[in-house]
Amino acid sequence: MLARSLVQGLSIGTKNMSTLASYQSVRRSKQIRYVVTGLTIGGVSIYYAVTNKAYAWWGSSDLDKSKWMADAITKPDTLKEDKDNMRVKMELLIMRIQGEVCRALEGLEPEHQKFMVDRWERKEGGGGISCVLSDGKTFEKAGVNVSVVHGMLPAGAAQQMRSRGKKLKEGKLPFFACGISSVIHPRNPNCPTVHFNYRYFEVTEEDGNKQWWFGGGTDLTPCYIEEQDIVHFHKTYKTACDKHDKSYYQKFKTWCDDYFYIKHRGERRGVGGIFFDDLDTPSQNEAFNFVKSCAESVVPSYEPIVKRNMNKGYGYADRQWQLLRRGRYVEFNLVYDRGTKFGLLTPGARIESILMSLPTYAKWEYKHSPKDGTREAELLEANLARTCSCTCNI
Amino acid sequence: MLARSLVQGLSIGTKNMSTLASYQSVRRSKQIRYVVTGLTIGGVSIYYAVTNKAYAWWGSSDLDKSKWMADAITKPDTLKEDKDNMRVKMELLIMRIQGEVCRALEGLEPEHQKFMVDRWERKEGGGGISCVLSDGKTFEKAGVNVSVVHGMLPAGAAQQMRSRGKKLKEGKLPFFACGISSVIHPRNPNCPTVHFNYRYFEVTEEDGNKQWWFGGGTDLTPCYIEEQDIVHFHKTYKTACDKHDKSYYQKFKTWCDDYFYIKHRGERRGVGGIFFDDLDTPSQNEAFNFVKSCAESVVPSYEPIVKRNMNKGYGYADRQWQLLRRGRYVEFNLVYDRGTKFGLLTPGARIESILMSLPTYAKWEYKHSPKDGTREAELLEANLARTCSCTCNI
Repeated sequence: MLARSLVQGLSIGTKNMSTLASYQSVRRSKQIRYVVTGLTIGGVSIYYAVTNKAYAWWGSSDLDKSKWMADAITKPDTLKEDKDNMRVKMELLIMRIQGEVCRALEGLEPEHQKFMVDRWERKEGGGGISCVLSDGKTFEKAGVNVSVVHGMLPAGAAQQMRSRGKKLKEGKLPFFACGISSVIHPRNPNCPTVHFNYRYFEVTEEDGNKQWWFGGGTDLTPCYIEEQDIVHFHKTYKTACDKHDKSYYQKFKTWCDDYFYIKHRGERRGVGGIFFDDLDTPSQNEAFNFVKSCAESVVPSYEPIVKRNMNKGYGYADRQWQLLRRGRYVEFNLVYDRGTKFGLLTPGARIESILMSLPTYAKWEYKHSPKDGTREAELLEANLARTCSCTCNI
Repeated sequence: MLARSLVQGLSIGTKNMSTLASYQSVRRSKQIRYVVTGLTIGGVSIYYAVTNKAYAWWGSSDLDKSKWMADAITKPDTLKEDKDNMRVKMELLIMRIQGEVCRALEGLEPEHQKFMVDRWERKEGGGGISCVLSDGKTFEKAGVNVSVVHGMLPAGAAQQMRSRGKKLKEGKLPFFACGISSVIHPRNPNCPTVHFNYRYFEVTEEDGNKQWWFGGGTDLTPCYIEEQDIVHFHKTYKTACDKHDKSYYQKFKTWCDDYFYIKHRGERRGVGGIFFDDLDTPSQNEAFNFVKSCAESVVPSYEPIVKRNMNKGYGYADRQWQLLRRGRYVEFNLVYDRGTKFGLLTPGARIESILMSLPTYAKWEYKHSPKDGTREAELLEANLARTCSCTCNI
């Protein structure tokens, strides 16, 4: 879970030394580069040689820099030289997924609203890229973060890992963590909120023994139950899981229902999805491939749901219900979410990245209770159930 | 702090078995009683005798039942027979203060909006009265709770008390806790939010040794700095403190600034006031009299501020700023406030009473930062200061 803590908000122990660059300005500078390149006619052969050399490395989809929202955190030389290292493979994956998700969301904005891109560095090692789209027509607030951080594991963090079963020796433990984390709050109450987080963690013990694991998941939080959407969402992850291990989906679906639970309300936050942690089997590469399948499922699991609902009509009462549900989202994130809590309590954390998961607006009403037989009551009933009752698993 | 936990939200370990009765219906039934009384001409002498007997008991201001929002939690006979017991004295005080505060707030509602009154019982012993005024013209949400609870101290609670220096023996510890707790969120961004909480706690050890203490405080959270208001507010509590101990104000003011601190933001929640806990000197009665002075200061400290600001004009931008500040309020209450946290984590707690401290609406905006020289920047600067810099203490 610490892995999650350290990468969620992507920012623990960081200081925002970032250069602020909007995605648009990145795009602009790229166009300028092409123009300049076109002018260097005398240098065409050199350019061609460089491009060819680069292509061998950037050729595969994970290495296609043009899809990224900003420069990667790790230096290009290290990324090139160490490309079989899981740290590099994971960083390249999350860079690509960040770009794909952000562009898919931008593609759903009728007025071409773009993500704002914040690239920040962490004093103690590493950094992150926070992408935020606020006040769009389709998305009220969407945040997609990556972070790649390393340093010494705080004593409390090591203790937390031990308490959930990790066998870690005492003493200073160098760690590495990288991940992608996102919460997307659409404007239309008929469009559900989605959250996903995929992360890789390494701890090196004094004798050089290295422990590693993956964690992650994607889960959906609708304001109204739309069976078709929930089944589509769940089935997308069932397909991703089944490709790797037939036991994964049921296990990680239950884990998700259990984790995203607002204990003091006796309600699940939403209709679930998948959630897993401490995944270190069957091999590093196979675990990575599973995480890759899940991360690649984000856009296909969510985009059709947004398209289907983003232009539905809604009224004042629907919006108020959505705001009340967002209040529940805030309650879960601030009271229970281990990543958020750990982040907030860590001195020097990049708070803005951690709290971009919170909705723009939220509401609380004393003893609000929807009337029987309404769509609001139906949602509440679904969330009060211990596990999602949709037909995804049949 | 546990005392605070147990009385804030006034509801720990409770189940709402309440009869719901609006303040207006209480009022109506009282009028009917008077009419009926007027008709019992033949019974005048009996009525007179009963009244005279009752008067001796209800005569002082703390015993004036007509000021209460509902029947007290403890049975009338016990309240009468045990009137020198601190439990009774404190219950009578909080019953009166609840009535006075609620009626003062109702008096500020131009359309005579009234508090809704929820009287609830606690399965394990005791109960509470939650009064809520929602969606008023002056107050967007105002909650004033009392609770009087007793039972066995949970092991975790005893541990928490020991960790802050209480010397409590192991084993089962009967406890008694009562208090009043309130958060008032006005609608106009020029009107500050106020919070207060006054509580009394008792733990009885196996050998019959009884430990008792008081805790409490009142603090102000404005969206805009209005020096005159802050000084008035602080000075009211300075006066209350100075009547009892000249060292109290400075000590409890600093404690307040330290307690209402949003660590991850490096900001105080508001401009402070007073805060104290574990007060068990110089004597039980003197400590009670101090708490009484503070609780009686709530209306005079706050009412003039509301009157001065409730009709000021404001625009969309002011409202948005207010909502962002309310987001901070939510962050403090859900992440740091020990009473709220303890309440949420206690099975069977009356969640609606605990969370009525949350504002109706709150907002979060990624990297919001007010422009230099604005009133918003001035507020932020005041909250970033380690302690309030107003002239109350000069």
